[in-house]
Parts: sequence; C-alpha cells; structure tokens
Amino acid sequence: MTDLQAEPGHLRQAPESFLSPALVNGIQQSGVTPSRRKLLQGALATATAAMLGSNGTKAADDPDVVKVPEWSRSLGKPVLTHPYGQPSRYESNIIRRQSPGLTQTDQASVSFTPLQNLFGMITPSGLHFERHHQGWVDIDPRRHRLMINGLVEKPLIFTMEDLMRMPSVSRIHFLECGANTALEWGNVAVPTVQYTHGMLSASEFTGVPVSLLLERAGIDLKRAKFLLAEGADGSSMTRTINLENALDDAIVAYGQNGEMLRPENGYPLRLVVPGVQGVSWVKWLRRLEVGDQPWATKDEASHYVDLMPDGSHRQYSSIQEAKSVITSPSGGQKLLKQGYYCISGLAWSGRGSVSRVEVSVDGGRNWRPARLEGPVLPKALTRFNFDWNWQGDNALLQSRVTDSTGYLQPSRTALIAVRGTRSIYHNNAIQTWRVGQDGEVHNVQLG
Amino acid sequence: MTDLQAEPGHLRQAPESFLSPALVNGIQQSGVTPSRRKLLQGALATATAAMLGSNGTKAADDPDVVKVPEWSRSLGKPVLTHPYGQPSRYESNIIRRQSPGLTQTDQASVSFTPLQNLFGMITPSGLHFERHHQGWVDIDPRRHRLMINGLVEKPLIFTMEDLMRMPSVSRIHFLECGANTALEWGNVAVPTVQYTHGMLSASEFTGVPVSLLLERAGIDLKRAKFLLAEGADGSSMTRTINLENALDDAIVAYGQNGEMLRPENGYPLRLVVPGVQGVSWVKWLRRLEVGDQPWATKDEASHYVDLMPDGSHRQYSSIQEAKSVITSPSGGQKLLKQGYYCISGLAWSGRGSVSRVEVSVDGGRNWRPARLEGPVLPKALTRFNFDWNWQGDNALLQSRVTDSTGYLQPSRTALIAVRGTRSIYHNNAIQTWRVGQDGEVHNVQLG
Repeated sequence: MTDLQAEPGHLRQAPESFLSPALVNGIQQSGVTPSRRKLLQGALATATAAMLGSNGTKAADDPDVVKVPEWSRSLGKPVLTHPYGQPSRYESNIIRRQSPGLTQTDQASVSFTPLQNLFGMITPSGLHFERHHQGWVDIDPRRHRLMINGLVEKPLIFTMEDLMRMPSVSRIHFLECGANTALEWGNVAVPTVQYTHGMLSASEFTGVPVSLLLERAGIDLKRAKFLLAEGADGSSMTRTINLENALDDAIVAYGQNGEMLRPENGYPLRLVVPGVQGVSWVKWLRRLEVGDQPWATKDEASHYVDLMPDGSHRQYSSIQEAKSVITSPSGGQKLLKQGYYCISGLAWSGRGSVSRVEVSVDGGRNWRPARLEGPVLPKALTRFNFDWNWQGDNALLQSRVTDSTGYLQPSRTALIAVRGTRSIYHNNAIQTWRVGQDGEVHNVQLG
Repeated sequence: MTDLQAEPGHLRQAPESFLSPALVNGIQQSGVTPSRRKLLQGALATATAAMLGSNGTKAADDPDVVKVPEWSRSLGKPVLTHPYGQPSRYESNIIRRQSPGLTQTDQASVSFTPLQNLFGMITPSGLHFERHHQGWVDIDPRRHRLMINGLVEKPLIFTMEDLMRMPSVSRIHFLECGANTALEWGNVAVPTVQYTHGMLSASEFTGVPVSLLLERAGIDLKRAKFLLAEGADGSSMTRTINLENALDDAIVAYGQNGEMLRPENGYPLRLVVPGVQGVSWVKWLRRLEVGDQPWATKDEASHYVDLMPDGSHRQYSSIQEAKSVITSPSGGQKLLKQGYYCISGLAWSGRGSVSRVEVSVDGGRNWRPARLEGPVLPKALTRFNFDWNWQGDNALLQSRVTDSTGYLQPSRTALIAVRGTRSIYHNNAIQTWRVGQDGEVHNVQLG
C-alpha cells in the first residue's frame, strides 16, 4: 500500500492509470499540497491536449507528467471477441503442469493444478488436474450409453438424453487423487504446492443420483453389497465402490461448474463419489454393475493399495481423510518485503465437513485458528485465511484441520509411526513450508 | 431410458460403447435370454478377433454385431494436450451470443449467457455475459493501480501486489445487468432464455472488502454517504454506490471462480456490489472516491433510470429485486417425447436469499413447490428443480420466487400496473413459456 502523504515524491512514478478530470478533482479535495496540485493540473492539461491532438507536449515525451495508459484512451475490443472466454494473456503462466520423469508415458500420467495461484473453493475447469491411465478420449455423446446391470431386477441402458431428462442434483465436492502428496512419504521434498498437493480440485457437479438409477433398475438390496464402475476409455478403468457410498451421495454426473464435463474429466459422463479417492470417480462412465463382493480389478489389486510397515497391505482404503495445506506463501515463492501477509490455504475431509483450521508459524509449537470462508460444505474444499506479520525471521508455516468427526490431521511423524514410509497413497500429513530470512519459501519435512 | 426386457430387439441398435468381456458377463448374470446371450458372445468373439488382427469378420462390416467404439480400443490423448483446458468439441455451440441489431456498435454492446444449457449455481467464466460501454480492455496488471480518495484522512494508492497481500474474502454472488429482460417490457417476446434472461451470471469472487480499504484510508464517517467507483476503460464508467452497500458486503475483487478475473469481466480488478445491478460492479476499477452526495454521472442520469407511467423517472434504483426463470424447458427447445421432464431454473434476490420457489404448468392457476439445490446463499443464484410428466397437452410453464424478506416475484400484469411499459430496466416479472402439443416451447406474454 502506498501512502501519498508519507511519500511526497511518489506521484512522479505514479501509476499510469490515474489521470482523469474526476481523479484530479478527487486528489484536490483530499488535501493534496499546492505543489502537487500544480503538477497534477499540468499533467491534466498535457493529457487533454494530447487527446485533442493539439501541438502541446505529449505526455509520453515528458517524464515529469503522468501518462494516460493506452487502455484508458482508446476504443476497446468488441463483445464476443471470444464467444467462449479465455484468461488474460498476462496469466498464461497459470497452467496445469506435468512433473518431468514422474511417469513413463504422457498417456498414463498426471498434470497438477496450480494451487499456489488459485483462490476460493472452486477450481476453474481449465485447471482441474488430470490423471489418465490410457490417455483421455473424445467421446461423441450421441453414441455414449450407460448400462446398469448385475444384481438388479431389470438391466437398463440410458442414452445421455435419457439421463439429462431425469431428476438432477447439483453439489460442490472436492476430488483428490489417492496418490496426491505421494512423494512426501520419502525424503523427496518436491518444490511447489502444485506438485505436492496439486492432484486436488473442486467443482460443482450436476447429474443423477446413483441411488435413483439403482432403484429404477430394481436393485436386489438383500444381496447387493458393492458396485462396479467401468469407464469407456482404452484402459477400461474399473473400480469397486462400496454400496453405502453409492447409495449415500454418489452422482452420475454430466455437469461440472455449470457446463458439460471437460473431455479430460470424463465427458460426457463420470461417476462422482464424494469423499472417495479420485480413481473411483470413473471417467467416461459406461457401466455400473451391482454385485455382492469386491471385484479386485487391476487398479485395486496391483495399484491403489497401501503398503504397511509390517509388509502387509491395506486394500479398498478409499476414503480421503481430513487434510489441509497452505497454498500461499508456499514452496518456490519469495516474500519480497517484511510486513503483513495473508496466509491462505485449503482444507477438506472425505468424512464430512471442516470444523476448524489452525495455523502455526513456528513449526507446530503454537497454533492459532484461521478464518474459514463460507459456505463450509461437506466433502468440499474450504478456503482458510490467517493474518501474519512477517518480521524477516525464519518461520515454519503449517496448517492442520479438524473435521466434523473430531479427527485431527496428523503430523508427518505421527502418520509415519502408523503407516511407515513404503506407501504411495493416502498421505494426509501436515505440510511444512520454511520461510528463510531471505524470504524464500521451501518445502521441508519435519520429523 | 431404455428397458432391455421391454425392447427385445434393442440390442442390435445398441450403443457402440458397451462391448467388453466384463459387460457381457454382466448381462449374462442379469438374466438375459439365451438368444441374446448368443448374440453377445458372437459379438464378443468378433470384436476380440478384430482387436487381435485375425482374419475374422470385422465388426464394422457386420451390421448384426455390436462394434467397440474407437475410444475404447485406442490409446487416448496425453495429459497437457491443453495445459489450460477447453470444452469438448461437441459443445462448440454452447457460447455467448449477441442479439443482432440490439446495439449500434459491438463495443457498446452485450453478449448473453446460454442459460438454457447450464447447470447448477456457478456460471463458467468463459460463458459469463458481457456488457461493455466502450469495449473491453487488456490491462497490464503491473501498471494498474487503485486509488482511494475523497472524504478520507489520507488518500491511498494500491498496486495489485499490495491488494493481493491484504486480508481476502471469497463469496459466491450473482451479477445481473439492470437491463436484463428489458425487451419483455414491450410486446417483443424474444425467442430464448439466453436473450430474455442471459445478462445474468454467478461466480465465486475473491478480493478485499471495501470496508477494509476505506478504514485504512480513514473514511470520514460523519460526512461520507456515497462512494464513486471509476473504471480505467475508455468510457471511464463511473457510478455512485450507496455507502451502506459498500460497507456491508462489497469487495474489490481480483479473483473469479478460483482464478484471476477474465479481461472482459474487469481484469485485473472489479468492484463487486452484491445484490446491486451489474453496471455498478465497475470493471477495470481504478478509483473509489468517498463523497457526501450522488455524482449523477452520465450512466446514472441519461441511462439506468426507470421511466414511470406518470412521466417521472426513478434514479439510483439499483437493487435487483427477487426474480426467477425456468431455463429448461425454455423458448426454442422442443419436447420430443411425452413423459417425465425435470423442469429446472434459477432464482435469486438482491435483498437476501431465496426462501421458496414455486412452479406452475398452467399459467399460474396452480402452484407447487420446487426443490432447491443447496447451498442456498444470499445474493447468489439458487438452482431449482421440479418433476413434471408431460402428457402432450398445451402447457404454460412459470416459476415464482419468494425471498427472505417475504417479497413475492410479481406477475407481468402486477409489475406493469406499478411501473408501466416505458421502462428499460429492472423487469423482474414472472416469465411464461408455452409448450405446444407439438412439444415446441415459445416465449409468450400473459396479461
């Protein structure tokens, strides 16, 4: 913040966007000193002359006057320059990114959401992370179908038109890959929050409740215990879903943030299983089969299992436990000045809603509550903010969440005591960012 | 919905996306008749042979077998095909549109949001309506500044970096142009909801509370009654804001739906005045001046006034009263079959939250409550849904909202009785869509 009175010389380097008759009047009304008023009046006269095409000195030629920026003195661009809008060209660096060398192919790979640059609780669909097992596919919705079969009275097939005519619900939920924050299990402190936590996004999803589809097909509730979800991509991604989750709040979704799903997020149809890891949110969904036991498919036997310290493995551990992370300041950023910073981050829980977020700036010795931005919704992201005055000292920034079940996000030490370090999935430990005296922020692993 | 058992011949025209070993097993488990099982097994063998490159009959050559679609038998596209994602090519028709002849130039014009194609309560930023007075501008955020001046202790200038370091809030709000639904004042029943109501969008906005900025500048609360907001575009859009609105919940926003504002929505900074008409949400915001009387600027004297039946005009009537509209089925759509439809729409109020939405299918003789999708937030859009079985008769579809102040959305007749028909702005009357026996939906004006 720049204080005009405290910095008398400031106006000469003043922003170029400030010269208008109203603005000059505004400054004069506000008790600007005579010398400054004279400068402003001179600038106004010059700018006016330039706009009128007179022979007066051009503002651009005189470093002592404030220049009117080009966008304030020209005709702008027409509506529908972009019938479907795009971000500013000044934001072209805010994109999904791939971690070089993380996967062997670009089809069975990941792109990460730039959490460090985002605000609020909604992820722009253009920046939603990607995780594909055989690349993303471009489905013609007129040729796509959803089948319901298995332990049902009558198998059913739905067209997209059928589904979009059915009763619909719209709900905001987070979507986190089970492997999010995977590298933090080891001693690899990846540099930025985009790579540590960027397999996390949240959207408003619209579609048909799974419970309604199963009811229509006449689900055999005496025998039914599980649901198989199958995708139409080349990998035929196939996952077992607990019937309890499916009947509770799962959705066969076609809408994401108000419009149709994006192709890389499952267009035209994906399964939404709130609170459950992303791999179960089967994209390009073509089939739901009702069964009485888990299917033990490839992606729930050879992958997405948790290796425990005793050599055993946990399977079907699909709920994303409560977790939080500070997104700003975060690794790779630099604090350029001392003074106030708004520490901002995200918290979520696959078991309910966020009850409380606390922030520590000293590596967990002292915790103070953060402000939660509303609405705080179940199985959605909650944005938190925390006031901090940085005095130029070393600091260790952490956040921890308590969810509506009373569960408190564990420290890395506490999590490793139970889970060991051989897991890939389900790392919900407290994240630490170290701020150095030079203002640089780095990922560090405490304990 | 297609019932396999009710339509035995259906499988021969079956969707191409359904053939996989698991799926065939699924159908067999589900009590498919032997003849159909044989067909499926044949199709499976053929498809498998084709995939293995054998000399068996290709599925594509035999109309009797079900073909595996190309997206299920090929390598998909890599992650980061689009580092910033785009909608499916099959949705290329879902765009903002301009109403031909509505304005004399494309810079001082409007593009409308395709409400008929949208879901939920969030508008994708790429489809947010546009209303410019001298075109949209492409501001370099490093050169942009915000000034606070007028009746304050010390005028202040903020860079974008300054603002983004300050305490922030994130809130979901609707944004409606005061001229939305303007043509319905006359006898012009424009054809689609995109043109009747499409100057309406909603986003999650992030920024700094105006109250905090005014406090920092030392606002003179004894004298201050109004705020002037000024934009940096060529039109210097300048509006008077009630201080009450400004101190209550107004935001100087840089974030929209999780990312920076889009250029056509005011990048890098716009004023958010929840509940107030869009013209006051000044885009490319460069200045807030505190004053003790309204400014009567061009766009609040020659425009944005309500012409009353007695020849007088209402000025500064900026709150958007409670309003609702059915977005599907809506004008220009056609019901192809009889049976169930989910009537879906949006409701909102500039004075609070939506308490109730009712739907009529007989032009207002009978009303029944609609389901509200949560969360129901103040000064935000609320999605409503209503179950309807269409039996092929003529129908007149209407919705009406009651807001948290108890205000009930008026009929067109009731509104015109008070306001006459000479207004352009603030038409919040009940909208009627007529469904004909041929299923075609038209905009009609009752009363």
